[in-house]
Amino acid sequence: MMENHEPHYTENVQEHLQQVQRLLDGHALMESMTHQPELPQSHELGRARHLDELREKLGTLHPADIACILEALPIEPRLLVWELVKAERDGEILIEVSDAVRESLIASMSRNELVEAAERLDTDEIADLAPDLPQAVMRDVFKSLSVEEREQLRAAMSYAEDAVGALMDFDMVTIREDVTLEVVSRYLRRFDELPDHTDQLFVVDRDDRLKGVLPLNLLLVNEPETEVVALMIVDTITLHPDDKAEQAAQAFERYDLVSAPVVDEEGKLVGRVTVNTVVDFIRAESESDVLNLAGLREEEDIFASVWKSAKNRWLWLALNLCTAFFASRVIGGFENTIEKFVALATLMPIVAGIAGNSANQTTTIIIRALALGQITPANARRLIAKEFAIAALNGLVWGGVAGLFAYMLYKSVPLGLVMTSAMLLNLLLGALVGIMIPLLMQRFGRDPAIGSSVMLTAVTDSGGFFIFLGLATIFLIR
Amino acid sequence: MMENHEPHYTENVQEHLQQVQRLLDGHALMESMTHQPELPQSHELGRARHLDELREKLGTLHPADIACILEALPIEPRLLVWELVKAERDGEILIEVSDAVRESLIASMSRNELVEAAERLDTDEIADLAPDLPQAVMRDVFKSLSVEEREQLRAAMSYAEDAVGALMDFDMVTIREDVTLEVVSRYLRRFDELPDHTDQLFVVDRDDRLKGVLPLNLLLVNEPETEVVALMIVDTITLHPDDKAEQAAQAFERYDLVSAPVVDEEGKLVGRVTVNTVVDFIRAESESDVLNLAGLREEEDIFASVWKSAKNRWLWLALNLCTAFFASRVIGGFENTIEKFVALATLMPIVAGIAGNSANQTTTIIIRALALGQITPANARRLIAKEFAIAALNGLVWGGVAGLFAYMLYKSVPLGLVMTSAMLLNLLLGALVGIMIPLLMQRFGRDPAIGSSVMLTAVTDSGGFFIFLGLATIFLIR
Repeated sequence: MMENHEPHYTENVQEHLQQVQRLLDGHALMESMTHQPELPQSHELGRARHLDELREKLGTLHPADIACILEALPIEPRLLVWELVKAERDGEILIEVSDAVRESLIASMSRNELVEAAERLDTDEIADLAPDLPQAVMRDVFKSLSVEEREQLRAAMSYAEDAVGALMDFDMVTIREDVTLEVVSRYLRRFDELPDHTDQLFVVDRDDRLKGVLPLNLLLVNEPETEVVALMIVDTITLHPDDKAEQAAQAFERYDLVSAPVVDEEGKLVGRVTVNTVVDFIRAESESDVLNLAGLREEEDIFASVWKSAKNRWLWLALNLCTAFFASRVIGGFENTIEKFVALATLMPIVAGIAGNSANQTTTIIIRALALGQITPANARRLIAKEFAIAALNGLVWGGVAGLFAYMLYKSVPLGLVMTSAMLLNLLLGALVGIMIPLLMQRFGRDPAIGSSVMLTAVTDSGGFFIFLGLATIFLIR
Repeated sequence: MMENHEPHYTENVQEHLQQVQRLLDGHALMESMTHQPELPQSHELGRARHLDELREKLGTLHPADIACILEALPIEPRLLVWELVKAERDGEILIEVSDAVRESLIASMSRNELVEAAERLDTDEIADLAPDLPQAVMRDVFKSLSVEEREQLRAAMSYAEDAVGALMDFDMVTIREDVTLEVVSRYLRRFDELPDHTDQLFVVDRDDRLKGVLPLNLLLVNEPETEVVALMIVDTITLHPDDKAEQAAQAFERYDLVSAPVVDEEGKLVGRVTVNTVVDFIRAESESDVLNLAGLREEEDIFASVWKSAKNRWLWLALNLCTAFFASRVIGGFENTIEKFVALATLMPIVAGIAGNSANQTTTIIIRALALGQITPANARRLIAKEFAIAALNGLVWGGVAGLFAYMLYKSVPLGLVMTSAMLLNLLLGALVGIMIPLLMQRFGRDPAIGSSVMLTAVTDSGGFFIFLGLATIFLIR
């Protein structure tokens, strides 16, 4: 019976993390004790024992789990654990960790260690690491590759980060169309193993042009004497290296793909995309959406220095401070009005705030519809009309409630009416910018999810103060 | 050569959408013309021609593409297109469309049509549709199932929406461990086709207990006389139907899985989860995160009525209005102060706004770290200290800038100092609640991503006004 050396799988990596932390704590305790010189040598042994246990533990873990654990450890124990990981696994782990943590690991490695780690990877993986590696390391790695691999690496590094080419790998199994399944089976048996995520074989001609695909599924259920050409699927999805990765991801989702061929303009097979890469891409995209909404420029290593984390957050705070200064000056223009009727100062944040929330809802709906390709010239007008109608309805309902609130507090009917009208107008303004900002950003080829919200708030804040205080100046102050 | 009747794949569904819209426009034009009674009969034909063309076009499309198109059409043309779709494809399309749009399609179908559509689906798919189907339809469907299928349907419907059981299907191919690969291959050849996403066969004993898995990969590269037991992988990830779906999704991501077996407490194989379901789950989760951040309770059919969409957004606006009212009363408590020093009214939104943004960044980081399992008792304190340090740094930097701004405008050093201190204190308050809210929500078993932001804003707004106006009352007014 064959022994199985696959690392352990686990559904919950937290248990492993806690075990590692216990071993690290034990080690740290020993460490602190051995600083007292009078202690006997047995402590040295105890200290080593903890590290041995930790090394053993790490040996049983899947690289992806080690990556999770490294991300959840502060810098110092992280580098201790990283030291204990077997050198031959360094590469696969570097591929798995987040960009921020990868930086901290790479910084701790020597040039030789890095070259050795990179050399164990596939060319598409080296391309993923490349931006983080020192130039000297990349030069050494490049020298160690075969001509074909160099070509692949150069190709993989040449594509934009959001292009299909950046998701592509080169582990295709190709066959010819004029052979029988029997021949294909014999050919496959010469492999030690098939590349991961091989759910189909790619049928190519002499010039590497893609003729079709043969799902393993069909290979398995059909008779060995059948010819490939009789079974292969011709009308399959083919990607192009310069296509948008997001579009490829949507195709994987819609058609439930496991792998898809990538062909160049001449129809030649240049690589394939597999579902695991797509899953990582989707997760990364959705995370960066959430981070961008909060104005975080990039993923943070949660244990990075205060300084580094603060810098990640500054651009956003600075932008918001600018719009807040501007809104402040709008209020400043109405100081005389506020002096005469100080109630206005208590009510004005309500007008600005609710319109900001409502506009944000509109923008979210529009951005999502844009991403799903649901907005066409034919239906854009209808959508815009609908968002205005909702804003008007909300303006009347919540503006009415707010007007009543203002009336009950200050016993002034005109104040209540000014409040209601200001809410209504500001919600309509919010709807307008909530629609226009993402549409314009899309038109100018920018990602509508980035930065929409700071512009929105700028408009609904300043606009809200202006509308409310302006109406009040006209109708309440004489 | 075999003909291939697979529907067309496309990387970009927008082209199809636009073609469908053109045909619909042509049809609508004809329609409006035939309302004029004097027109000759040839228009009747023209009208039918557009519909025929449309029907033909739809016939060539993949169900998932039709689903996209239905989602991008206003109600009326949507139902027209739905009419033209061949009845036998209704089921697969209903599975693909979003919940909101599914509702509109189901409302247009008769009981018989629904029963017929549901009967063509797998039991796990029927379970997905079940919440949207009328009870009478479900009764009819249930009656039409075999005993085994009824059992499966009952099981599938019994799991919580966020449990692995809800992602599971029942299309497993099982084999025994004491047979040779030759026998397995012969067994597979008796299938017309293997279930989608079959990348491994499940090895079970007489009692259906899972013994291991045999990847097709190994089946293909090894010699036919090898026994299954010698190749099967024993240490594989197994899911349980009551596990959290999110955890299973993370396992799929970490280990790059295509399928995984689901076993019950006794180790019996009850189903499997495949990567396409996981991809849909991840996408749905990330979308609902973004929607929840904007306070949208559920996905909106962008063509739903104004009334329906408004209701989806109301809870959020109402909550925010309440917190805004409260903040307004906080300001109201300082009316005397503001009357004496109206500059305060212009500056107070800055204090509240920037702290809100900064607290939001903190919460986003904490929620993400919680989701990735990076926060353990061992490192929580360190993280909290770090967020406070960042808030203090930001408070000094941006508070300093804002204090300078206040000083330059109003030529008052005390005002500048009050501004800076208020910013600093409010940013620290923001960090405190930005950390505590998600941690407490997690502790009480709630999703920390939902509703955090409304609580945050409530604290940073009211707190900011109170701190700033309070300090001003103490130090500026005499």
